[in-house]
Amino acid sequence: MTAYAAPLADMRFVLQEVAGLPEVATWPGYEEATPDLVEAVLEEAGKLASEVLAPINHIGDQQGCQFENGVVRTPPGFKEAYQQYVEGGWNAIAFDPEYGGQGLPWTLATPIQEMWHAANMSFALCPLLTQGAVELLQAHGTEAQKALYLPKMISGEWAGTMNLTEPQAGSDVGALRTKAVRDGAHYRITGQKIYITYGEHDFTENIVHMVLARVPDAPAGTKGISLFIVPKFLVNEDGSLGPRNDLRCASIEHKLGINASPTAVMAYGDNEGAIGDLVGGENQGMACMFTMMNNARLAVGVEGLAIAERAYQQALAYARERVQSRAIDGSDPKPVAIMRHPDVRRMLMTMKSQIEAMRALAYVTAADLDRAKRHPDAPERARGQAVVDLLTPVVKAWSTDLGCELSSLGVQVHGGMGFIEETGAAQHFRDARIAPIYEGTNGIQAMDLLMRKLARDKGAAAGALFEQMRSSIAALPGGPARDKLAAAMTGLTEATDWLLERVAQSPVEAAAGASPYLRLLGTVAGGLLLAKGAAAAARRLEDGGNGFDPVFLEAKRATARFYADNVLPQTAGLAAQIREGAESTLALDAAQF
Amino acid sequence: MTAYAAPLADMRFVLQEVAGLPEVATWPGYEEATPDLVEAVLEEAGKLASEVLAPINHIGDQQGCQFENGVVRTPPGFKEAYQQYVEGGWNAIAFDPEYGGQGLPWTLATPIQEMWHAANMSFALCPLLTQGAVELLQAHGTEAQKALYLPKMISGEWAGTMNLTEPQAGSDVGALRTKAVRDGAHYRITGQKIYITYGEHDFTENIVHMVLARVPDAPAGTKGISLFIVPKFLVNEDGSLGPRNDLRCASIEHKLGINASPTAVMAYGDNEGAIGDLVGGENQGMACMFTMMNNARLAVGVEGLAIAERAYQQALAYARERVQSRAIDGSDPKPVAIMRHPDVRRMLMTMKSQIEAMRALAYVTAADLDRAKRHPDAPERARGQAVVDLLTPVVKAWSTDLGCELSSLGVQVHGGMGFIEETGAAQHFRDARIAPIYEGTNGIQAMDLLMRKLARDKGAAAGALFEQMRSSIAALPGGPARDKLAAAMTGLTEATDWLLERVAQSPVEAAAGASPYLRLLGTVAGGLLLAKGAAAAARRLEDGGNGFDPVFLEAKRATARFYADNVLPQTAGLAAQIREGAESTLALDAAQF
Repeated sequence: MTAYAAPLADMRFVLQEVAGLPEVATWPGYEEATPDLVEAVLEEAGKLASEVLAPINHIGDQQGCQFENGVVRTPPGFKEAYQQYVEGGWNAIAFDPEYGGQGLPWTLATPIQEMWHAANMSFALCPLLTQGAVELLQAHGTEAQKALYLPKMISGEWAGTMNLTEPQAGSDVGALRTKAVRDGAHYRITGQKIYITYGEHDFTENIVHMVLARVPDAPAGTKGISLFIVPKFLVNEDGSLGPRNDLRCASIEHKLGINASPTAVMAYGDNEGAIGDLVGGENQGMACMFTMMNNARLAVGVEGLAIAERAYQQALAYARERVQSRAIDGSDPKPVAIMRHPDVRRMLMTMKSQIEAMRALAYVTAADLDRAKRHPDAPERARGQAVVDLLTPVVKAWSTDLGCELSSLGVQVHGGMGFIEETGAAQHFRDARIAPIYEGTNGIQAMDLLMRKLARDKGAAAGALFEQMRSSIAALPGGPARDKLAAAMTGLTEATDWLLERVAQSPVEAAAGASPYLRLLGTVAGGLLLAKGAAAAARRLEDGGNGFDPVFLEAKRATARFYADNVLPQTAGLAAQIREGAESTLALDAAQF
Repeated sequence: MTAYAAPLADMRFVLQEVAGLPEVATWPGYEEATPDLVEAVLEEAGKLASEVLAPINHIGDQQGCQFENGVVRTPPGFKEAYQQYVEGGWNAIAFDPEYGGQGLPWTLATPIQEMWHAANMSFALCPLLTQGAVELLQAHGTEAQKALYLPKMISGEWAGTMNLTEPQAGSDVGALRTKAVRDGAHYRITGQKIYITYGEHDFTENIVHMVLARVPDAPAGTKGISLFIVPKFLVNEDGSLGPRNDLRCASIEHKLGINASPTAVMAYGDNEGAIGDLVGGENQGMACMFTMMNNARLAVGVEGLAIAERAYQQALAYARERVQSRAIDGSDPKPVAIMRHPDVRRMLMTMKSQIEAMRALAYVTAADLDRAKRHPDAPERARGQAVVDLLTPVVKAWSTDLGCELSSLGVQVHGGMGFIEETGAAQHFRDARIAPIYEGTNGIQAMDLLMRKLARDKGAAAGALFEQMRSSIAALPGGPARDKLAAAMTGLTEATDWLLERVAQSPVEAAAGASPYLRLLGTVAGGLLLAKGAAAAARRLEDGGNGFDPVFLEAKRATARFYADNVLPQTAGLAAQIREGAESTLALDAAQF
């Protein structure tokens, strides 16, 4: 229906020229990420994405999952595609070699994730959750737990899930009520969880649920939450499967999008209680789950980027082929492809430029994640971690909001065809809409950025990052684009100062500006990375291209200019809104709405 | 599932204090629109909307229309609701009393339309199209055609449709190929039309299609288009139904939204050719159809407003009842309703303020439509028409873009529940998405504004309107809100001057700014009307309220402040984008995408 081709040249460009993969590959443990291997991995992943995952995306949407008697059947072709994915070793890319992982950098794993999500977001959610569970166990599991679960989860033979939400406990995870009672070496889990992505499916022989629950007499709120491994089938000491655990999928949701991915209501402990294995000590569950959530938040941000890219490719193909009306400049006596009309061009450039900005920010953040994990120098590791902490909510929320906006533009480029489901543009628009909601709503991300990442250290980490950004801007070639970026950076700095002042005196007022602030930060950071890319492109045009086509490099420069001229101007309004908009945001009484 | 209550106080406020309904009611022919009648009509319409139309909105979406052997069955309850609508006389509100209309002002008909669309957008599309067809016949039909068709179309016993689009002729209507060959007093029509809203249904015993077609040897393009009345059942001279005409519904579309409204592929002339009755002379079809389209464009703008209002009511109800997390200011030891969280408050205010701005612009434009039709003084009529011409594309495109954005915010307020279809928020998000596409895409509206409405008279009409806007701003009470409005007005004026200069020298560059310009104009005009409303509210607070609750009037003032502080700041970016963004919008070659 709608083809997808991995944008390999764009990916390579960001990896090499902006995110610094060649440097990442020099860090201990990442030496295998040679240029040849990177190239081969990207090419092969691109093939799986375009040839196996993309072709079943539309049928997955239209047919959705079937639920009967606790059993979920995924749409035609999905189980087989997952098999191919596992056999190709794709699940193991970034994980610990000790347990079968390939130990490759996240900088490389991120474009590959982008491909899976662009090709088939519903499919890619299963690996996304498994990946989070693997990260969690790698960080917090005992040696025995790792040995028992990691090899099969890293290979993808078993899938993982994340069980936080309950009907009364959504954004407020601390309100959860699922119980865990000690029973010998294990715990017995009882309770209901909702919105469990891939909580039940037919891809794998076992599903390893990571479940948040409370032990008796646990403190209230998030301090009293513990995390348990609760597998669908109990695992014997030799790794073979034992009896079915006391848990079941009670139903799956009828959703706006991502229809091929089952969103389950999970019931634990209908009978004697599901057997759970404690991870990381009683009441340590939130710390464990944050490892999983931070990983998943970056991945969901990549989803936003990916779905926008998919929508863009489809809109571009339509705009190239759909002939309608004559060119406004009279250059052609016949009707022309609509991409020659300026308003369609504006929509395509709005998509293209912001997709490239999102991609740059996501890959750069992944490189900082690698820096935090593997850089030989401790201060550099700390710096990497600080940037990752700051930018994780930005990548998540900024990219997923843009994912919605750009997939909506993708529909618009199609005109009437965009509203017809068989075209496929509408699916991206529907699929994209979940990403600002799950893994912490974008409002929660904005509060995380403001309260935890910005205010807690009184702006120290942000100040360091912004100093670095200002230096980068100063190092850019002069011109209107740099001036606009510098002006946007000033707006960001002033908004930051204002928020830091207000957050102590009137947190409510600061919070009213949290979402515009996140948007402002994402817009400026993305613009800076595009400008860096444009500067790199200019250098490459002089030194022979470094493997990139000159026409491609010129496009990088023009796209960055478009962003500076057409997207960056939004930042003045955002900065003004943050500084001046809080009072009236909060002016009405509840009864006045 | 999701209740709807007509926002009667808001509607009354705009009608009385901003749109000037009391003055409209003094114009010849509108004297029946007394305060008592207006009140009674709004109340009764509100009841039909909330008690009959809103309750079947969700089932209509979930079940959609059934198509079999050329017959369309609408979802359960729709046919009966339409019967009630006709029996209540609702279809006749704004039409010619000579043919059974009630002759009430469009200023009053517009809030009533808003109610139908908010309650059930799919349902309301049938009257929307009929209304356009009635307007067309009132303006261009012969006495005989009016006598034969208008009484039953005005009563709603027969429905009307609009048949423009063909597979190769969407935005480019001039590319249509449907043929009309003279055959005695009539024409024989053959061809296929697509995207025909309510092209076939079970609401009425007859459906009167308004069909664009070409007579033999007609000039190419839009100059060679003629318009025909092509009824599903031929109508005898006594008004009774004759034989079935040679037309059929070939299929209906599977769409993203408005599922209860059939979108038909229509086949004309499978056999001897469908009998059509020429309206307004050969090759005069576009002028006729523009009457219908202009009416429909305003109505579609009202749809954008209406669906945003519906989404807002649902989001507000959820935000009041959903309890999650403690208040950030520590004012309450327990979790609170989420509307107390600043970020949720920001989303609700963003919806509320822009809905009120859209409503004001739509009703004011309707009042200018009434001015153009009924003001006793010719210069005032001309002024009214000039404003309507300018603002019709703005009401259409600005309001429908906002309809999408605000219904998306409505989903977001719900968190995870927003993505579950049974909640209903997702339906509004899906339904809203068609409105920027049909009746001329929003890109076409922007080009209409730029090329026809702004450039054709070299800015004369716009200059007059802007002069009036500047006077209105000067007359507002002083303060930061007025200053922000004045700054935004300056940005609008400068962007207009720039466009008027460029449109002659480089129409391509001007066209690249058309959509941001439309957005800019809508944002400023809406902000001015909110400010006028706030000033009126301040006066009413001093003179006893004129029937409005002081708490309500205070909310009007605070909402206008929110808009000035949080929405108007966007205008600086839009103005900059228009002036500086065109070159880079057009910089890439097609191959560089």
